[in-house]
Amino acid sequence: MTERLIVVGGVAAGMSAASKAKRANPNLDVVVYEKSLFISYGACGMPYLIAGDVADYRDLLARTPEQMAKRGVKVHVRHEVMAIDAGARTVTVRDLAQGRTFTQAYDKLVVATGAAPIRPPVPGVDLEGVCVLRSLEDGRALLRLIEERRPQRAVIVGGGYIGLEMAETFRRLGMATTMMIRSGQVMRQTLDDDVRVVVEDELARCDVTVVQGTLTGFEGDGWVEAALTDEGRYPCDVALLGIGVRPVVELARQVGVRLGKTGAIATDHHMRTNLPGVYAAGDCAEVHHLLTGEPAYIPLGSTANKQGRTAGAHAAGDDASFAGVVGTLIVRVFDLAVASTGLTSAAARSRGYAVAETNIQAQDVSHYFPGAADIHVKLIVDEDTERLLGGQIVGRPSAIKRIDVLATALHHGLTVSDLQRLDLSYAPPFAPVWDPLLVAANVAGR
Amino acid sequence: MTERLIVVGGVAAGMSAASKAKRANPNLDVVVYEKSLFISYGACGMPYLIAGDVADYRDLLARTPEQMAKRGVKVHVRHEVMAIDAGARTVTVRDLAQGRTFTQAYDKLVVATGAAPIRPPVPGVDLEGVCVLRSLEDGRALLRLIEERRPQRAVIVGGGYIGLEMAETFRRLGMATTMMIRSGQVMRQTLDDDVRVVVEDELARCDVTVVQGTLTGFEGDGWVEAALTDEGRYPCDVALLGIGVRPVVELARQVGVRLGKTGAIATDHHMRTNLPGVYAAGDCAEVHHLLTGEPAYIPLGSTANKQGRTAGAHAAGDDASFAGVVGTLIVRVFDLAVASTGLTSAAARSRGYAVAETNIQAQDVSHYFPGAADIHVKLIVDEDTERLLGGQIVGRPSAIKRIDVLATALHHGLTVSDLQRLDLSYAPPFAPVWDPLLVAANVAGR
Repeated sequence: MTERLIVVGGVAAGMSAASKAKRANPNLDVVVYEKSLFISYGACGMPYLIAGDVADYRDLLARTPEQMAKRGVKVHVRHEVMAIDAGARTVTVRDLAQGRTFTQAYDKLVVATGAAPIRPPVPGVDLEGVCVLRSLEDGRALLRLIEERRPQRAVIVGGGYIGLEMAETFRRLGMATTMMIRSGQVMRQTLDDDVRVVVEDELARCDVTVVQGTLTGFEGDGWVEAALTDEGRYPCDVALLGIGVRPVVELARQVGVRLGKTGAIATDHHMRTNLPGVYAAGDCAEVHHLLTGEPAYIPLGSTANKQGRTAGAHAAGDDASFAGVVGTLIVRVFDLAVASTGLTSAAARSRGYAVAETNIQAQDVSHYFPGAADIHVKLIVDEDTERLLGGQIVGRPSAIKRIDVLATALHHGLTVSDLQRLDLSYAPPFAPVWDPLLVAANVAGR
Repeated sequence: MTERLIVVGGVAAGMSAASKAKRANPNLDVVVYEKSLFISYGACGMPYLIAGDVADYRDLLARTPEQMAKRGVKVHVRHEVMAIDAGARTVTVRDLAQGRTFTQAYDKLVVATGAAPIRPPVPGVDLEGVCVLRSLEDGRALLRLIEERRPQRAVIVGGGYIGLEMAETFRRLGMATTMMIRSGQVMRQTLDDDVRVVVEDELARCDVTVVQGTLTGFEGDGWVEAALTDEGRYPCDVALLGIGVRPVVELARQVGVRLGKTGAIATDHHMRTNLPGVYAAGDCAEVHHLLTGEPAYIPLGSTANKQGRTAGAHAAGDDASFAGVVGTLIVRVFDLAVASTGLTSAAARSRGYAVAETNIQAQDVSHYFPGAADIHVKLIVDEDTERLLGGQIVGRPSAIKRIDVLATALHHGLTVSDLQRLDLSYAPPFAPVWDPLLVAANVAGR
């Protein structure tokens, strides 16, 4: 008998799992059920679709069901998995187009049900013009709204990376743009205050207003007219909710899949849940944080793909595992790029570390090279062991990939002196003779 | 009595040594003797000075003697150290401007005499128009030559990074440009054939002619008219010798400083030579290669600065050391950037490794993001241990700093599976959801 792997969800984690499983074991019957019309789309590209950088939403599609079929993976879109029977190892599937329901047996199951945007239960949240940006449908709807209604004023609720990307998009579309943030601080979880000010300066330069306040509701007659906080009223023609996502775990929870403290699905390093033969991967699952040693909920496409690949490989019989993440995040904010990895100094202190902080400003290429620009590098170091705990960089987009050196350093427990010794690449168009990372390490090492 | 540190040579290594020593021990009397008129200049910027990217040669100067004086470092330009007396711990110095010679005592001495361009002893090598590009004087002379003579045809002898940078410069100045290389291959020491072809395509696209042949001489009547090889005659109005440099070690050798097999000065990890109190740093010194475990001669500004800093710190009483390099090199070639680190596959094989090679081509940002461009990543892996031995990248300048992740991996012995797990930064403007480094690692891991 041919073994069957069923994958629930056909975006990042689900498609990675399916592709990898089929490659690892071509005899495996690999079936994917995806509730929406689309698989394998680049959801992270939607701010750039709406800004007009990406011409057509179809450009975001990486693969079609037909392409997957050629690889031997059976993809069914508009098919929703309604229930799992873990004892019988079957799923109940609803064909949304045909309106019929059927049962399908599995040997292995990968749950990749993703995440859903948080919609706070405040008055007016269901008004027209109050949007989220998660699925491709969300993106297309917002694009249509902008084309048809030509909004002039946008309010963004939340100061995370989606909020920042959309602030850029809204400004580029000519809208007056206000970010409404409970703490008043962008990227509160991922940046220290001394790095955040650089980002805030860029937002101010680009006429994005940042206001502090807790969302209390929206006003409007059918269409949103203002967002309200305990502090004020912010007129708007469109409002974007960017206050985070929650893992979609109902299907898994119903059948007894264990959730972690974060509310997302708990897995081991092979991405196995507590139920035999059942894996979870992507934005519905927790991820092991290598610096805290604890499970975390950090839904990102890059992690989803690694988790999916691991789940697929292991389900197909390979001894694959995924160690975890160090919390790397990167975002473009107008002409700046902002990146963070590891622990912020606040997070490190709250975990009991004696923290030494170094924050340097340098030029990102040789000082005489045309276009040399400032780059800010912050290192967060454990005073007791000299080990790097975290890093934050703000600079030009072309300079920002340096964060990956710090991420690599975190994976392998490098100390400040290890960093000082790195033979990093040098030529005038690419770096000063002392790379800014080395400058920061040298200062930290004093 | 105040201790005195004398530094011979005031460019990269020398000025790093002097600055660091003074910072580490403000009571130290730090004196620098520099033969030329200039200290602390960015010699690597000269191709961009000549191309016109850098407006004035003075822009290349990082620090003046006056600025150093404010830091408490005494710098004497146009002062040549003629001899060292290691027993008496004195140096004999000639003041080139005043024409007088004097003796100065030292407690510690840093030899940072740099390197000199190789001028092959062929007929015609002293013709006008046959140039080198090493000192700031060389750069200014070439600049003047181009302004005054308006050469139309350039021949570059050699296929290393100086040759490549100057090929770009000459083409941008409108000259017909020929690279004359003994092997016929650019970057022969640092690139594998399958990566080199990408660079050669770019040279061809930009109308740089690459010819194979051993230089036999130059023809001309006062001014160079052609470069000659065993294979042909190449008419030119200017010829640049880019066949490498040799360490300037005469001063040190005379007093009994030991040279290594490479011909450069041998040092320990503190940059001490065999003579008590005498250090060497920069392009006159060897460097420990972390992958071969042997001394190497790889003169680069980034290494010179690290060595100088180490020598200065140790001479001032700190327990500083410099572990060595992994052989990282980066160069811009027109619209491409080319980078290499570690061993090439040929070098690895010649050292007895069973080598597995992976060479992938991917896009450097999300496929739908405007301007997404090809990037080539090659990994050279030890089949027995799965450890990375080397990496080569060719792509857009904005994508090339990824080489530093591979350099960091080489410093710490990372394996292919270590690379696969790295939590590298992802957002559409900066990387695809699988960073090209992860794609390469995934392919290598199959």
